[in-house]
Amino acid sequence: MRVLSNEDVDQLLTMPECIEVLEEMYRDYANGQALLVPRIDNLSPSTEAGAYYAFKQMGGAWPRRRVQALRINSDIITHPIIAGKPRRVKEPKANGRWVGLVFMFSSETGALLGIFPDGAMQRLRVGAANGIALKYLAREDARTLAIIGSGWQAGGQLMAALAARPFEQVRVYSPRSENRAAFVAEAKARHPDIEIRNIDSAQECVEGADVIMAATSSMVRVLEPAWLKPGVHLSCIKSQEVDQTVLDGCDHVVVHVTAQPKQYDNVMPGTPNMNSDHESGWWNAPGNRFAEYPDLAQLVVGSSPGRKSPSDITCFVNNVGVGLQFAAAGALVLDKARVAGLGHELPDDWFSETVHP
Amino acid sequence: MRVLSNEDVDQLLTMPECIEVLEEMYRDYANGQALLVPRIDNLSPSTEAGAYYAFKQMGGAWPRRRVQALRINSDIITHPIIAGKPRRVKEPKANGRWVGLVFMFSSETGALLGIFPDGAMQRLRVGAANGIALKYLAREDARTLAIIGSGWQAGGQLMAALAARPFEQVRVYSPRSENRAAFVAEAKARHPDIEIRNIDSAQECVEGADVIMAATSSMVRVLEPAWLKPGVHLSCIKSQEVDQTVLDGCDHVVVHVTAQPKQYDNVMPGTPNMNSDHESGWWNAPGNRFAEYPDLAQLVVGSSPGRKSPSDITCFVNNVGVGLQFAAAGALVLDKARVAGLGHELPDDWFSETVHP
Repeated sequence: MRVLSNEDVDQLLTMPECIEVLEEMYRDYANGQALLVPRIDNLSPSTEAGAYYAFKQMGGAWPRRRVQALRINSDIITHPIIAGKPRRVKEPKANGRWVGLVFMFSSETGALLGIFPDGAMQRLRVGAANGIALKYLAREDARTLAIIGSGWQAGGQLMAALAARPFEQVRVYSPRSENRAAFVAEAKARHPDIEIRNIDSAQECVEGADVIMAATSSMVRVLEPAWLKPGVHLSCIKSQEVDQTVLDGCDHVVVHVTAQPKQYDNVMPGTPNMNSDHESGWWNAPGNRFAEYPDLAQLVVGSSPGRKSPSDITCFVNNVGVGLQFAAAGALVLDKARVAGLGHELPDDWFSETVHP
Repeated sequence: MRVLSNEDVDQLLTMPECIEVLEEMYRDYANGQALLVPRIDNLSPSTEAGAYYAFKQMGGAWPRRRVQALRINSDIITHPIIAGKPRRVKEPKANGRWVGLVFMFSSETGALLGIFPDGAMQRLRVGAANGIALKYLAREDARTLAIIGSGWQAGGQLMAALAARPFEQVRVYSPRSENRAAFVAEAKARHPDIEIRNIDSAQECVEGADVIMAATSSMVRVLEPAWLKPGVHLSCIKSQEVDQTVLDGCDHVVVHVTAQPKQYDNVMPGTPNMNSDHESGWWNAPGNRFAEYPDLAQLVVGSSPGRKSPSDITCFVNNVGVGLQFAAAGALVLDKARVAGLGHELPDDWFSETVHP
């Protein structure tokens, strides 16, 4: 049994590799050769007044690589008032750290193969899903990219976009100029050959862009109907960044998974401040078209066509994450860690038993 | 983060303690102060022809003790023909061992507190649930106990029964005489003050017994309608050991949990030999009365009455396990392990992170 760190995962898994292995997995999933374990968020009161405890679980079995993954997040969540508005904050209460873990099992022997934090892989797999969609949906000649957002996820989106198309210019907008400046500086250092511009207006950022990617934690629409120009591809990392009006203006919409529009909530009565905002989203509203959209796996295998003409307006909605992404990327990372001798090895006997429960 | 073994758990947790902490948890659960995470069995093909892979997950949050538990089983299952009949066998493929694990998290900090194999606790918590039911449902003056079954679970049932009533005579019947003899010999050694008899007929075993406990892996009825004599208490560890006919002959039936009659199956198409026998059980059959029965938690808090008269026939059906049992017993075991300095301590930083996924 091998314990890896986020640094190990970052070192072992590149974005192009992550995209490749996820595409292989989506292909199998489309063909009924992978099992999705739905995401469930279990919510109960925490000790601090007003805080709640969120235990999130998702998973998946991928027989081709003989793995089952389980990814959990164990978070203390508060709703402090920031700039006059309540905000959802994950508190790093575990000695100043957060707790998200991936457990990898062998579906050939049953053994626990490895444990690693979810952070590095989380960003890679979110980016990879949007990158795969971009590859199939954006124009071949797309060269200008607009990114709305400058946080942790925006970096993954940039890496994925660059793996899918040879963008020549990247424009970045986000409301807070300090965050944006830091993001642009880091992106320039990482991608020295590309023109990366810090833009202080959303409108200017998206003007004439071939691809517009939202990568925010916003609870309200980020991509505007006015931005729907012929040929553009839109991409978002959560359903809240678009709405039915935006989607109705697109020629072709693909969602990440249709098996579940959003996580299921399992809530203890009396859990404070719990806000199931996904109950009230467009995907649940009367007249929504969620059920009509094909998913990423169908796009990958071609059972749903990609872009049909250069003037099509396309959109990918990364509506919910799936544990199968961790199964795919995790299988690859563990294989590479074994070869590289990375991580801490612990005795397998600690994680197995001689009794038959 | 602490890794414990089955030996540690066995050493740290006695049956009376397990019963006590589970009763405290059921009380909270009855009052809406605990969150049940449903059991889901995720089934997909394994590598061996005819085998399948079962990844079982269940959990629960218990705010009083500030814990969230997740229990998983990672099993390779085959259906060999034994004595002319197909049998469901969990293959110990992990270097000759099985894989079942309990993960304990803090709902106060989010941290992973401990990992231990599920075997020792599995038996204690199944026994404890039936022991608690026996305490509330059996006659106060019950002194004769019949046990049908002589496997691993039967030992837990015996321990639990003895913790609930001062039985003077215990009779054991199971079809295979060798297994039975071994079980009786071990039980005598463990409980030298009690008369423990090896009986080679089910009829003789139950004749005049005050309590009849089934503890088998049978897929068909074990407790017979003819055994329903005034004053008797029946107990079983799985729903298949009884049927609606038996239950209709009882004055008072209690099931373990009403929140889910059985596990949910999440099955990959093409999974071989998968037999969802719980789809066809009495609890799903037309006219079944499952939904009418109170659960153990209601019995514990008195919102469902226990035995009303010495001549009542009572029955407890342990229909499905819940992860909350592991939350309760696990919290106690971890507290005791900390004090005793038992187990392997690993750095907490291996199981937490500095990025915010």
